[in-house]
Amino acid sequence: MRVLGIDPGLTRCGWGVVDGRPGARPTAVGVGVIRTAAELDLELRLLELHTTVTALLREHRPDVVAIERVFTQNNKSTATGTAQAAGVAALAAAQADRPVAWHTPSEVKAAISGSGRADKEQVTLMVTRVLGLASPPKPADAADALALAVCHAWRGPAQQRLRSAALAGGLGAPVVQRTLPRWQGVSAR
Amino acid sequence: MRVLGIDPGLTRCGWGVVDGRPGARPTAVGVGVIRTAAELDLELRLLELHTTVTALLREHRPDVVAIERVFTQNNKSTATGTAQAAGVAALAAAQADRPVAWHTPSEVKAAISGSGRADKEQVTLMVTRVLGLASPPKPADAADALALAVCHAWRGPAQQRLRSAALAGGLGAPVVQRTLPRWQGVSAR
Repeated sequence: MRVLGIDPGLTRCGWGVVDGRPGARPTAVGVGVIRTAAELDLELRLLELHTTVTALLREHRPDVVAIERVFTQNNKSTATGTAQAAGVAALAAAQADRPVAWHTPSEVKAAISGSGRADKEQVTLMVTRVLGLASPPKPADAADALALAVCHAWRGPAQQRLRSAALAGGLGAPVVQRTLPRWQGVSAR
Repeated sequence: MRVLGIDPGLTRCGWGVVDGRPGARPTAVGVGVIRTAAELDLELRLLELHTTVTALLREHRPDVVAIERVFTQNNKSTATGTAQAAGVAALAAAQADRPVAWHTPSEVKAAISGSGRADKEQVTLMVTRVLGLASPPKPADAADALALAVCHAWRGPAQQRLRSAALAGGLGAPVVQRTLPRWQGVSAR
């Protein structure tokens, strides 16, 4: 499975492409940062971002696009721009007929480092190790995008199976949780 | 000047097209609401919104698109979706080579009703009166979009002149404010 990870932002938007599957060592295919000039009008910054993400989708043909889920309560001053950048990236994926998966920062940190509270240095260190890179990806946004892609390659298929099972059975998933012992329930990872 | 006003949202996105200029009675050209289903994946909702705004731009050929400026501190639970909807609408404008103007809710309320604290009913009432409509536009999102378009038709050109003057003279605008009595200053109105 090929995953395009996107750490959304207007000033710096990290991207990273990874080939991987659960339980296997993933491979880095590409990594970079999209920058748009703060002097540009907002709609032109969004246009640049959309054009570049569309070009990345065409070049790397990922099976899925993983985007960091934005929480507006964190860092209010830039939250709106970050949400808009994420929305435009998701739109580009939909236009290319690719599904979008959203992961929270703590999910990504937990997947790559074992701790949902890992700091940026720890995430960069683990991304470098897990992908066997010669040097750490810079800036941190690029490393975060790779971590997001690795997180989805490892965890995404299981999430997708749970989701498909829940959709197939209508309200099946909650029933399963009530009739099976907790450790057999579908909510157990 | 023809203005397409957009009150952004995922569940209901209001739009309204108005012809107008400062000091004149504006005319309503079209109004409506774009709805996307909450069951759809986010990226598909954004795709529907983008497609519809693009079609509106093609149909009505506005000179400018006025979008409500979103503040993330208000109504946190839906703020991310609203910001993403606004971003996708701004992207559609940029792709159609139309400029985007952002107005805050209080600017719009002050322009249409004389008070930045007007409630929804008051805004709807004044939109109906100012545009000479036979009945109030519904839902409120549609009325808000028309109010936004009227606000820009009345205030936008002055903002644009200020902006051009400021850009042409570097720090010119503040100098004018310092050398003229306050009531002659460019900050009036």
